[in-house]
Amino acid sequence: MNPDRFSINQMTVRQLALPDLVAHCVRLGIPGVGLWREPVQEYGVAAAADLVRDAGLTVTTLCRGGFFTSDGWEAENRAAIDEAATLGTDTVVLVSGGLTPAYPDLPSARARITEAIGALAPYAAERGIRLAIEPLHPMYAADRCAVSTLDQALTIAEHFPADQVGVVVDTYHLWWDDRAPAAVERAGAAGRVHSFQLADWTTPLPAGVLNGRGQLGDGAIDLRAWADLLEKAGWTGPVEVELFNDALWARDGVEVLEETLEAFLEV
Amino acid sequence: MNPDRFSINQMTVRQLALPDLVAHCVRLGIPGVGLWREPVQEYGVAAAADLVRDAGLTVTTLCRGGFFTSDGWEAENRAAIDEAATLGTDTVVLVSGGLTPAYPDLPSARARITEAIGALAPYAAERGIRLAIEPLHPMYAADRCAVSTLDQALTIAEHFPADQVGVVVDTYHLWWDDRAPAAVERAGAAGRVHSFQLADWTTPLPAGVLNGRGQLGDGAIDLRAWADLLEKAGWTGPVEVELFNDALWARDGVEVLEETLEAFLEV
Repeated sequence: MNPDRFSINQMTVRQLALPDLVAHCVRLGIPGVGLWREPVQEYGVAAAADLVRDAGLTVTTLCRGGFFTSDGWEAENRAAIDEAATLGTDTVVLVSGGLTPAYPDLPSARARITEAIGALAPYAAERGIRLAIEPLHPMYAADRCAVSTLDQALTIAEHFPADQVGVVVDTYHLWWDDRAPAAVERAGAAGRVHSFQLADWTTPLPAGVLNGRGQLGDGAIDLRAWADLLEKAGWTGPVEVELFNDALWARDGVEVLEETLEAFLEV
Repeated sequence: MNPDRFSINQMTVRQLALPDLVAHCVRLGIPGVGLWREPVQEYGVAAAADLVRDAGLTVTTLCRGGFFTSDGWEAENRAAIDEAATLGTDTVVLVSGGLTPAYPDLPSARARITEAIGALAPYAAERGIRLAIEPLHPMYAADRCAVSTLDQALTIAEHFPADQVGVVVDTYHLWWDDRAPAAVERAGAAGRVHSFQLADWTTPLPAGVLNGRGQLGDGAIDLRAWADLLEKAGWTGPVEVELFNDALWARDGVEVLEETLEAFLEV
């Protein structure tokens, strides 16, 4: 893929401090970064904003808002939106939350998620921020995200204007779904693709299934076919590589960053 | 649920030798068992058939055929069908297989699965055996089963007569899917529900994600709603409880069997 489209999600190389990540992005000609709230808060939101702006980097997304089935979601999400505006990104990624005692089944959780997004969208829009609903793989439906398919995410997003609420297309979460290509087309036509993320599917999955996302090319997903699909759907924005992977995190971060850029170019 | 509908899948209490399993089923009034090829072969297929028949137990399914994307599938599946006929069950459960070098992507794997089932169905029908395609949770799509949804399983089954090829509805694999209820209805109307299995969804998932199926009532699934759904779809057959669970396997098998019966009655 074209290096001009590449964005490195901060989590892929979480072992790198933000200034190091930024410096190496500049050195390697990487134009975009996806940031996470926790390390950005640790560094200082305003200082992080200065750092990436001065380096000429585009902040492609801020991860993450959501968890709408838990207490305190509204203050947390407003803070995420404020931070996104400070950082100069236009997109907050939403991981919507799983089942909780208040929302013990999938239909009630999904209804709650729709309602919460409706409450947030105008606040975000006033600050120039789009909310991007990320469907997570069905293996996370109980404990992280009751939105499991792109169709479900789109159905929620379609309650709201496309420039306010859209979806994240992440190959790791959607690759298995034979209905996803049609949903990508529908999302693209409506201008609701707000982020496109790549990760590969490698097995066996680790305990807890959180930190086993494969380096591009190491797994089962036909990433080239997904890139073509998004292109046909009209997506010309950044392509973010977000890997949660204990083995990658145990290695030198600069080496992993360089290897990820290379793997991206080879897709 | 009604104890007359209960079937214990042998894998739930794999620590019990077959004669012990049979004796305790008789003692507890459990009418059905789902058997697995490996322990049955170890005991001797004909001897196992005598044992369960003499005890008056119904063999609800034989697990498993499938793995159609691997070499040697045809001989293995014919053997499974022959064993099923000897055991007196009418249903072989199919776990269809994942990606292999010969079938490296989901569309080619799914096409291959359809073709293989077509080659087997007449052989099975001649022996009074139905083939039941089990959609497995999407987290197994790469390495165990490229058939991930009930819609996909039905679409394959619908190439063949309903009394030859149907589907397994297993709550563990399907609970997250908002399209599954409509597919259950469609399968029921066509007489294609060949097996109904229960297991609960508990988190965190263990490494490899194979052996973490929860005891009924311990997890996120509304099992009562699924039982109602199957009833509305016209399913009056056995309800098999199949748990792969390292924690249950580490305990006394008789205790687990009694506890599983109790949990079943409480659904």
